[in-house]
Amino acid sequence: MKLRNAFLLAATAAMTPLAAFAQETTEAADPLAEVVAALAASNAETVFVLNTFLFVFSGVLVFWMAAGFAMLEAGFVRSKNVTMQLTKNIGLFSIAALLYYLIGFNLMYPGDGWMVEGWLGAFAPTVLEAVGVTADLVEDIEYASVGSDFFFQLMFCAATASIVSGALAERIKLNSFLVFAAVLTALIYPIQASWTWGEGFLDEAGFSDFAGSTIVHSVGGWAALVGAIILGPRIGKYAKDGRVTPIPGSNLALATLGTFILWMGWFGFNGGSELALGTAEAAANVSRVLANTNAAAASGAFAALVLTQLLYKKADLTLILNGALGGLVAITAEPLTPGLGMASLIGAVGGIIVVLAVPMLDRMKIDDVVGAVPVHLFAGIWGTIAVVLTNDEANLLTQLYGIVVIGGFVIVTSAIVWLVIKATMGLRVDAEAEVVGLDKTELGMEAYPDFAPGS
Amino acid sequence: MKLRNAFLLAATAAMTPLAAFAQETTEAADPLAEVVAALAASNAETVFVLNTFLFVFSGVLVFWMAAGFAMLEAGFVRSKNVTMQLTKNIGLFSIAALLYYLIGFNLMYPGDGWMVEGWLGAFAPTVLEAVGVTADLVEDIEYASVGSDFFFQLMFCAATASIVSGALAERIKLNSFLVFAAVLTALIYPIQASWTWGEGFLDEAGFSDFAGSTIVHSVGGWAALVGAIILGPRIGKYAKDGRVTPIPGSNLALATLGTFILWMGWFGFNGGSELALGTAEAAANVSRVLANTNAAAASGAFAALVLTQLLYKKADLTLILNGALGGLVAITAEPLTPGLGMASLIGAVGGIIVVLAVPMLDRMKIDDVVGAVPVHLFAGIWGTIAVVLTNDEANLLTQLYGIVVIGGFVIVTSAIVWLVIKATMGLRVDAEAEVVGLDKTELGMEAYPDFAPGS
Amino acid sequence: MKLRNAFLLAATAAMTPLAAFAQETTEAADPLAEVVAALAASNAETVFVLNTFLFVFSGVLVFWMAAGFAMLEAGFVRSKNVTMQLTKNIGLFSIAALLYYLIGFNLMYPGDGWMVEGWLGAFAPTVLEAVGVTADLVEDIEYASVGSDFFFQLMFCAATASIVSGALAERIKLNSFLVFAAVLTALIYPIQASWTWGEGFLDEAGFSDFAGSTIVHSVGGWAALVGAIILGPRIGKYAKDGRVTPIPGSNLALATLGTFILWMGWFGFNGGSELALGTAEAAANVSRVLANTNAAAASGAFAALVLTQLLYKKADLTLILNGALGGLVAITAEPLTPGLGMASLIGAVGGIIVVLAVPMLDRMKIDDVVGAVPVHLFAGIWGTIAVVLTNDEANLLTQLYGIVVIGGFVIVTSAIVWLVIKATMGLRVDAEAEVVGLDKTELGMEAYPDFAPGS
Repeated sequence: MKLRNAFLLAATAAMTPLAAFAQETTEAADPLAEVVAALAASNAETVFVLNTFLFVFSGVLVFWMAAGFAMLEAGFVRSKNVTMQLTKNIGLFSIAALLYYLIGFNLMYPGDGWMVEGWLGAFAPTVLEAVGVTADLVEDIEYASVGSDFFFQLMFCAATASIVSGALAERIKLNSFLVFAAVLTALIYPIQASWTWGEGFLDEAGFSDFAGSTIVHSVGGWAALVGAIILGPRIGKYAKDGRVTPIPGSNLALATLGTFILWMGWFGFNGGSELALGTAEAAANVSRVLANTNAAAASGAFAALVLTQLLYKKADLTLILNGALGGLVAITAEPLTPGLGMASLIGAVGGIIVVLAVPMLDRMKIDDVVGAVPVHLFAGIWGTIAVVLTNDEANLLTQLYGIVVIGGFVIVTSAIVWLVIKATMGLRVDAEAEVVGLDKTELGMEAYPDFAPGS
Repeated sequence: MKLRNAFLLAATAAMTPLAAFAQETTEAADPLAEVVAALAASNAETVFVLNTFLFVFSGVLVFWMAAGFAMLEAGFVRSKNVTMQLTKNIGLFSIAALLYYLIGFNLMYPGDGWMVEGWLGAFAPTVLEAVGVTADLVEDIEYASVGSDFFFQLMFCAATASIVSGALAERIKLNSFLVFAAVLTALIYPIQASWTWGEGFLDEAGFSDFAGSTIVHSVGGWAALVGAIILGPRIGKYAKDGRVTPIPGSNLALATLGTFILWMGWFGFNGGSELALGTAEAAANVSRVLANTNAAAASGAFAALVLTQLLYKKADLTLILNGALGGLVAITAEPLTPGLGMASLIGAVGGIIVVLAVPMLDRMKIDDVVGAVPVHLFAGIWGTIAVVLTNDEANLLTQLYGIVVIGGFVIVTSAIVWLVIKATMGLRVDAEAEVVGLDKTELGMEAYPDFAPGS
Repeated sequence: MKLRNAFLLAATAAMTPLAAFAQETTEAADPLAEVVAALAASNAETVFVLNTFLFVFSGVLVFWMAAGFAMLEAGFVRSKNVTMQLTKNIGLFSIAALLYYLIGFNLMYPGDGWMVEGWLGAFAPTVLEAVGVTADLVEDIEYASVGSDFFFQLMFCAATASIVSGALAERIKLNSFLVFAAVLTALIYPIQASWTWGEGFLDEAGFSDFAGSTIVHSVGGWAALVGAIILGPRIGKYAKDGRVTPIPGSNLALATLGTFILWMGWFGFNGGSELALGTAEAAANVSRVLANTNAAAASGAFAALVLTQLLYKKADLTLILNGALGGLVAITAEPLTPGLGMASLIGAVGGIIVVLAVPMLDRMKIDDVVGAVPVHLFAGIWGTIAVVLTNDEANLLTQLYGIVVIGGFVIVTSAIVWLVIKATMGLRVDAEAEVVGLDKTELGMEAYPDFAPGS
């Protein structure tokens, strides 16, 4: 739930006894009424501070996911493309941060501006609350500070672009990728996110996506899938006779670190999406979300650990890592209403989907370097559907409606953007550069220059 | 102090003036009494939120220690066993998370269930508080939400198993290790932890272990020591003529990163074990715990930096890293009552113990790959004894009693489990696999396939 | 703003209505006055808890920067010097922690002790608040607990020394560096920091440095610059004919990780320097600081991404990483008053300065291995000047006065210390050790022993 301007429930819950009493006593202008009013204000201020701090804390954790994606992808590409993959990751984050400030935030939360001033009114840059604003002057004392909300939401926007960079690794041009990331973070992500989290038509239809299995993860996943198809596979990945050549990642320690970072960051991703901390109810909900998020990640990893041994006789670390991520993506649409058992089940199915989908993509000759499509798109769809298992307010048709509408929008818009980039700047480095490695040819800088390459 | 159901002191401290006043005025059903009651409730709710958030914050940090152990161990093993070590670490965490939910949490905190419904009543899976539970319906308004407590305590359980994985690296079979980790996290850890933190007989006897020098670290250390003895040393480590062949770790940058991660996570480990944040007293205590924890880590590292130069003429980074960890383990049993000077001293002794114990284990031909036994067991025993230096409520005999009882229990139970696994699944990979490396032979996946191996 | 003993404004803001009312009613000793007093106390306690927790949260993040510096530097040095660089980083942190406790903290915040008991009174070790101190007994109920303040401030002191270690890498002796770090953290840093943050003469003059562009970063930068000049460049870096030989770092994945860690830690560095969280005003300010800090980092990186492509036709990852850091350093002197647009601009200039200054230093044959001088000194000076762009209370002359006074002090004192160390212990390893690598020769321990060195 992310309705920026309409989130009063949790914040007001704590004030009910006070507020009721205040109403009783305010008519008589007696000292007691003054005390009650002063203290209701002080209580509201504490709730505001705690809600704001939840965004600060969670925003820092979701920021950290940018490092997680960078390490995961640097570990999953070959050593000759590591510098490029790192450059893409820090580049996309920087671009996302600037564009979400310039356009994205207000586009995503048009509020009254959208309706009153028309479409263009929503394209304004973000303006933070004034320095030293006091409780009576903040934009919404019953929610949280604008700065904290912006900080938190920005990180979600950047995460969407991070998902794309991994799938298209080892062959896409730097600036072509960055231009796509710019359009994705400035326009595609905020516009579709506004439909649900900005009180748009999907929200009105009852589409339910707590922290973004669809709105973040499958959006990144669709953009990655369309990009991977248009870009084509890496040289040598798929032989003409149908054989698939595995291209192992260069540094599984980094990839594991990246997974742990993402797992950690997800506590902010899902926990912060409760959007409130200041009441017992909100705090207990945040706790519940974290416990469920962890259970889903663990069972996604565990399912992959067991399933890869059953299928291949050997545990497969890269699938276990992606299994954990699949579990995390799956629980993201509804980490609040399940109990620990159901959360574990939802996560386990996410992990299983990843294990089964990775070879399926290979059979379709879609080359997704890090497994972003199985993890973020397929497990994201599963998680969005799984909302109906535990959340009585969601229903299957509306969930499918949201998945299809958002999917269709992203497929069409990202295909247009990818094709325009291909026709103008070009998408792909030339074959020689790809074989030699992008670090040497495109950047002139190797990631590990002191180490001899393996045979 | 970790008494889940009996922790009222800190939470009620803040309410004393109000509560006293409330008692005075409730007899007369006047508006003032209503105000006082409403505001006492609101105050209690704020304390609940803050306590809950301490667990959320600290739980995230202790989760992060799972990544720290993974990086430390991946850095300390040879490159041919890195994938395996990473697989073990993510595998054990996933298993711990599932089993602590299914069995461990309720077994560790049996509460009335243990006594009333008998032993079996404690084996129930964890049930979180309901979604949207309000202040008057939470399980314990004077403590914190169940979900946050579960989330926090789960991470301690997983840490215990992480300690074991390092010691037995480079020769134990994956599934054999994971089965041991399952028994450790589902049964051995929660049962012995219940004796102190679940209000059991060691708590009644006055055994004092603030955040688990004994209950977490030495439990992992004993299980690792018993396992290392039963498993035997790595091939080539100890020659027949008594010479010890050092087997250097493959990546000291990762090992250092792991140490910094563990150091950071320890602020949650010890700070969260204050179990309360909502009063000035609790907040000041948390601060004190963090300042002391950092001082002990720093002086553990500094002591190792000086001592290795004195003993070997050269600073030894691996011992400095383990010295910091030894300082952290040592302060864990009592990070609150010492001043900064005493905390530094306790940590320095922890670091010195590690530097001296590592060659001692080698002389005994016990092959502990990462130094887990010196760090977690020996420094843990020291820390548990050192409680009596600053905590007036602890006494030496009771501390020794706790160390011996828990040590005995873990030695016996883990020996049984290790021996049963050895007799059934087998414990050790065959000699050829060990020489070639577990990554190629057991997993078919190298951690660094693009890099040429050194001579 | 860091006035430890004088920070009342934010904390009292929330209490104003209550306090005013309390004053009205305390004369009549009626029950209402008692309620008001009890609740004002409870409100003050909540503010104290929240302020304290801000320091705890931020201190943990700034601690994490120690790992960031270690990874950045380990990634930027050659593989033959990685163990040494890691040892220096963990060593300097440990020494800083011990000396800041023994001397630094009280020296930096002399308070009345400085004036009343004379200079020497300020050299006392830090004493934390007592265990279990209650709201009426804490040192300053309107600020935060002493332990949390100490914990937070200590991390700044350590960061200063971390800046130095990177610049002088690959040729300085371990213990010579550590002795300098000891003097820097025990004396040079705290003394100059007291001039502004300890209510000294620069504070009285109106010098404004929110979180330390000058007081932390340029202090480290000046000490590094003086050290680099006295130490001389690495063998082979500058040929006699004026050509500069690039010496690429050995692990750009680690360097990128280090940058992300520093970026994350900076949210605590700048956010915590608001020094309060307990009121709506303080919380909104903290949010604003974080949003601005992120914007400056992103635009520093983006500016370097664009500028290196314009200048060199290829994006340069090492300059992009340092560009992000330059943006962070630049915003540190005033992360509160700018809007997001101005913060982005200030950060972008920071990034541009770094890109232009790195080759400039090379032309001057000053060998700064990691780019610490451009990042921390040059961008720090820029940031300190840029305060006047948005903060009406700052003026250019006073900002320049602070830059010059602190710069002069650090240049003189660090030159003396460097020269004394050079004359006594020696500063530099011998040429053979430098060529072979410090890990083998000075420490006898390689960081990556399993990997074959590249050609």
